[in-house]
Amino acid sequence: MTLAVRYTAARTLTTAPAETRSPGPGEVELAPAYVGICGTDLHIFHGDMDARVAAPAVLGHEMSGRVMRVGPGVDGWAPGDAVTVMPLRWDDTCPACLKGHQHICQNLDFIGIDSPGAMQQRWTVPASTLVRLPDALALDRAALVEPTAVAVHDVGRAAVREGEKVVVVGGGPVGVLIALVARAAGAEVRVVELSAHRRLLAEELGLTAWNPADDDVPALVREWTGEAGADVAFEVSGAAGGVDTAVEVLGVRGRLCLVAIHPRPREVNLHRFFWRELTLVGARLYDRSDFERAVALVADGTIPADRLISKVVPLTEAPAAFEALEGGGDVMKILVDCTADAYDTEGAAV
Amino acid sequence: MTLAVRYTAARTLTTAPAETRSPGPGEVELAPAYVGICGTDLHIFHGDMDARVAAPAVLGHEMSGRVMRVGPGVDGWAPGDAVTVMPLRWDDTCPACLKGHQHICQNLDFIGIDSPGAMQQRWTVPASTLVRLPDALALDRAALVEPTAVAVHDVGRAAVREGEKVVVVGGGPVGVLIALVARAAGAEVRVVELSAHRRLLAEELGLTAWNPADDDVPALVREWTGEAGADVAFEVSGAAGGVDTAVEVLGVRGRLCLVAIHPRPREVNLHRFFWRELTLVGARLYDRSDFERAVALVADGTIPADRLISKVVPLTEAPAAFEALEGGGDVMKILVDCTADAYDTEGAAV
Ligand SMILES: [Zn+2]
Ligand SMILES: [Zn+2]
Repeated sequence: MTLAVRYTAARTLTTAPAETRSPGPGEVELAPAYVGICGTDLHIFHGDMDARVAAPAVLGHEMSGRVMRVGPGVDGWAPGDAVTVMPLRWDDTCPACLKGHQHICQNLDFIGIDSPGAMQQRWTVPASTLVRLPDALALDRAALVEPTAVAVHDVGRAAVREGEKVVVVGGGPVGVLIALVARAAGAEVRVVELSAHRRLLAEELGLTAWNPADDDVPALVREWTGEAGADVAFEVSGAAGGVDTAVEVLGVRGRLCLVAIHPRPREVNLHRFFWRELTLVGARLYDRSDFERAVALVADGTIPADRLISKVVPLTEAPAAFEALEGGGDVMKILVDCTADAYDTEGAAV
Repeated sequence: MTLAVRYTAARTLTTAPAETRSPGPGEVELAPAYVGICGTDLHIFHGDMDARVAAPAVLGHEMSGRVMRVGPGVDGWAPGDAVTVMPLRWDDTCPACLKGHQHICQNLDFIGIDSPGAMQQRWTVPASTLVRLPDALALDRAALVEPTAVAVHDVGRAAVREGEKVVVVGGGPVGVLIALVARAAGAEVRVVELSAHRRLLAEELGLTAWNPADDDVPALVREWTGEAGADVAFEVSGAAGGVDTAVEVLGVRGRLCLVAIHPRPREVNLHRFFWRELTLVGARLYDRSDFERAVALVADGTIPADRLISKVVPLTEAPAAFEALEGGGDVMKILVDCTADAYDTEGAAV
C-alpha cells in the first residue's frame, strides 16, 4: 500500500492510499523522496485554480527520488537511479513548439497541476522528463533543483552579465534563488523584501536586503550605482508596488525580468520604458539546459539548499504544512518527505 | 533680413525677423530649406510642453538645407553642401553617455525643443550634428530623413528579421515609416489605423491596413499567422487600446516595441508577458547610424517621401499650418519651406 496527498476541494487535502500501476512504454515509476511545496501549490490549495485543476488531484512538482521500475522501451535508466523530474509535457505541434519554445507549449501539460504530481510514494512519469542527479547530492537538497531551474531561466532571460548591478524585488524562495544565481553569474545583487525573516535569511546567505517599507529603495539604488541606476531588476513580488519599484530603479537600457504572476493588468510607467529605452522580458518555467545547470548549482553548493529548507514533514502531515504556509509565517521552503518509514516513530500510518 | 517662426505662447506662433550671427568655433550656419511639422511640435504649440520649452522658441527638427558659412575649426564642410541635422547634443559625462547611449543622454539637448530649431532662414548648429545628403536627393524629400531615422531605430530595437510578421498599431507618419522600414527588412506588415485617410495612404503604398473600429484585429492576426500570433508589434498610437492590441496580437516570444509617448501609466496585461514570454522594448530617437541608414532609404526611394508629403507651405504660413494640423484632417506630413523667395508671388514679406 502506498500513500498520496490529494487536493479534493478548496482548503482540503487528504492523505490516502493510492493505486500503483506498472510503467507503460516510455514510462518510469519513481519513488519520490522529497517534494517541495511552492506558491502554485498554495494557490491550488486556496481553490484559486479550480478551473484548471481537476480534483481529486495529486500535487507536487519540486521533487527528488529514485527510479523503481522502468517501462518497455526505456533506455538509460535503472532502478535505484537518483533523479528529479522536469515536469513538462508538450505537444510538439503548436506554434510555440514549432518555434522551439516547447517549455511554453500552448497545450502544455504541467505535471503536478494539469496531471498527477509527485506528492505520493509511487509516481509514474515519462522517462523523457527525468533529469539525473549526482550520487553525492543529498535528495532533500535535490528537491530545490526545480525552483533553482526557474531562477536559472530567469537570469538567462535577463541576460545578466558579470559586474552588473541587479535588484531582486521579492525575497521569497524564487527571489532568493534568482539572487544567488545572479551572484554566481558575477552580478552585484540587492534584494527588496518586506518580511524581516526573509531579509535575515538573505543576509545570512551573504546578500544585502532592503526593506521597502522603511527604505527609499530608488534612492538607495541611485546611491549604490552612482546615479546610473540598476542594469537589471527582477519582479518576483507579484505586487503592484513591486512593478513600480522594479521600473523605477532601472538605469538607461535596463532590463526588467518579469517572474511573478500578475493575474490582473497592472499600471506600468510606459513613459519610463520609452525615455530610458528599458526592456521588459517575461520569463516562465525552464528548459532542460536550465534544469541541468540547476542540478550543477545545487550539487556544488552554489545554491546552499540546506539553508533554504525551513522544515521537512512526513507525507501524512502535508495537509497541516499547507495550512501553516497559508498563514504566512517565518518559513522559506517546506519539503514533504514521501519515504515510507521516515516518521514511523511519530505514529504516521505508513 | 531673415525670418523665423517662433512659439510665443499656447496656440500662438509668429513669423518675424531674426538676428543672424557668424558661426563660432565648431559651428556651421545653415540655410534651412524644408522643415517638417511633427507631433512634438504640435504638443509644444498646444502649450503642453511649456515647462520644457522656453518661449519665444524657434521650433523644427525635421529639416533639410544647405551650408552657408563654416566656423573656425570646422573641417569637411563647405558652403553649398546639402545636409540634414541630427538634432541631438549630449554631455558625454552622464551614465547614459558613459554606457555609450548618447542619444538618450540624461542631459540631452534636443535641438528644436530645448534649443532653437530649424524653422527659420538661417540656423547655426554644431558641425557635429550634420549628416550629408546625396546631391541627387531633392531637399523636400530629405526633410523626411529625421522621422525615417526614428523608424530605422525602432525597427532595429525590435530586431525585425526577414520573414517575420509585424503589426504596426498607429498609421500616422511614424507608423507608416516603421511599416515601410520593416518591409524593407523583409517583414510582412499590417497597419492598424482608425483614420480612413491614413489607411488609404498606407494601402496606396502597398501596405495592408486594418480598421480597429470595424475589424477584430487579434482575430485577423490569428488568421494571418495560422494561430501563431505576430512576431513583432509596434505601439505607435499612444492610446490605451493600442497597447492592449499590441500585446494581444503577439505570439510566443513576441516583441513589442514601444514608440509612442504615454504620459500617464497604462494598464498592461503583464500576465500575457509572463505566459508567452513576451518582450517589451522602449525605443527613443536614433543614433548616427540610424540617420545614415535613413538617408540611404529616402535617397533610394525605399521610403517614397513624396507620397508622405501632404502639403508644402511657406514660412509665413506656418502658423496657419499648425492650426490646420491641430484640427486633425486628412494630412500626413506638412513641410514648411524656408527658402527666401519661394512664395514671393503670394505676397509673403520676404
Ligand atoms: Zn506545443
Ligand atoms: Zn549624457
